[in-house]
Amino acid sequence: MRRVAVIGLGLMGGSIGLAIKARKLPWEVVGYTRTPANGRRALRRGAADSLASTPAKAAEGADIVVYCAPVRAIPTLVRESLPGLSEGQVLTDVGSTRMFLESEIPAIVAGVGAAFVGSHPVAGSEQQGIDAARADLYEKATVLITPIPKAPEAPISTVQTFWKKLGGRTVVISSRDHDRLLARTSHLPHMVASLLALTVGRVPGHEKLAAFCGSGFADTSRVAEGSPDVWLDIVRTNRSNLAEELRAYRTQLDRLLESLDEGDFAGVQHVLEAGRSARRQLLAGKKGKRT
Amino acid sequence: MRRVAVIGLGLMGGSIGLAIKARKLPWEVVGYTRTPANGRRALRRGAADSLASTPAKAAEGADIVVYCAPVRAIPTLVRESLPGLSEGQVLTDVGSTRMFLESEIPAIVAGVGAAFVGSHPVAGSEQQGIDAARADLYEKATVLITPIPKAPEAPISTVQTFWKKLGGRTVVISSRDHDRLLARTSHLPHMVASLLALTVGRVPGHEKLAAFCGSGFADTSRVAEGSPDVWLDIVRTNRSNLAEELRAYRTQLDRLLESLDEGDFAGVQHVLEAGRSARRQLLAGKKGKRT
Repeated sequence: MRRVAVIGLGLMGGSIGLAIKARKLPWEVVGYTRTPANGRRALRRGAADSLASTPAKAAEGADIVVYCAPVRAIPTLVRESLPGLSEGQVLTDVGSTRMFLESEIPAIVAGVGAAFVGSHPVAGSEQQGIDAARADLYEKATVLITPIPKAPEAPISTVQTFWKKLGGRTVVISSRDHDRLLARTSHLPHMVASLLALTVGRVPGHEKLAAFCGSGFADTSRVAEGSPDVWLDIVRTNRSNLAEELRAYRTQLDRLLESLDEGDFAGVQHVLEAGRSARRQLLAGKKGKRT
Repeated sequence: MRRVAVIGLGLMGGSIGLAIKARKLPWEVVGYTRTPANGRRALRRGAADSLASTPAKAAEGADIVVYCAPVRAIPTLVRESLPGLSEGQVLTDVGSTRMFLESEIPAIVAGVGAAFVGSHPVAGSEQQGIDAARADLYEKATVLITPIPKAPEAPISTVQTFWKKLGGRTVVISSRDHDRLLARTSHLPHMVASLLALTVGRVPGHEKLAAFCGSGFADTSRVAEGSPDVWLDIVRTNRSNLAEELRAYRTQLDRLLESLDEGDFAGVQHVLEAGRSARRQLLAGKKGKRT
């Protein structure tokens, strides 16, 4: 691998470039962004060696092309890069939902012989843009690799190597399982946080309310700061899995309300204790790791 | 003020002692705890100058007595300290709900002439016990002071001074308003987090699930690590306010589910955007501050 094209230079794309440079990988990074100011910032931060004026020019001659944009913007960028793509190239991305991309991208690139192997690094921040990019964003991050059924081994292994060189830990999984599981572990928490902020702030300008928001509210709602564009695309492309998770959440919520109404404090205690132990199980082994 | 009695040497009580020492306040700290091992640790950490063997002995001769225990344990501790209480002393506490304590404590201490002015520092941690205590826990923390109606000024001012000397910012509010507002800004987030952990972990040992829990889940559920004992008491003593908040939350959740089912993505976008801007408003001015 000698040349990497990064299409989209925000938090995710910018962090790829910064990681390549920080780890002194012998790869040339060609970047593309729709926003010239971001491109200049990316160059200044050393997140790209050079900028291309179109996705096609960025992709041309790259061994691997990484699309870093909100999920529903990715097919358009792939289409725009088509004139620069050729046989033997490997295409991947950082999209947070996989079924949508699996159903769109292979058909777009079918004619050029480039291999698409999608990926989703479980890493991020509630902050956005090139200024939030970090060289260590992918360090120890789980990167989910979602090859289409019956994909050949070679490009899968190229994508795995790519992320491992950036510090990630790769796990291969089908797009279907990915979307089902991430609806639970990532998309549900996001909506729960957004709904919380919305509910707490439902009476705007409420006297003294802001003064009473402590770290509990701040942490529980933190991810609600995430980019609405990115998240709307996630919701749109994983709607039914997310709805199923939200319904499971509502079932628990209804049960708790029932316990409260009936003064069944054993039921409340169960929520507190089982919630704590579920969290511990789910995060076991992640102590000291930026997750 | 020369002598402070701290009844209960966990996270909150221990942090009071540590803050007094770190700030070199000229106050003697007498501690009481039911658990001898915790008492020894508190002494070793310098969170108390000496230990008393009963709440009454700890309270005897103290200018201010601070009860630091789960809400429903506080009246018992006040009752146990009665033999040591006398006129002119000021009693306060760190309980997270106020109406319950306002309805219990004044009656208990009515005979001795000590003044009770409750307080609730909006500070804490998901960790518990003397080992989690920190000298800076109350620094810049909002401390809500909840005097009973028509309480005299002098003890209110003593309690305010006490917390200000520990670095807190005091706000006087009625117990009724306190419980209503904190149900929204603190108790609701806690239950939302517990329900999230419970929902995400509802199929225990789910293959690969733990690997997919990133920082979004970790942050959104963090407060679910809080002590079930402390939180069960909070729920028990603020049940109807909490139920009202959970119902408001359910209304938002139902609306979101409806949007998803109908493919009304403008509705989803509203949740994402209004959630983010509500959070920003609620936390405005808290940047860089440990909240």
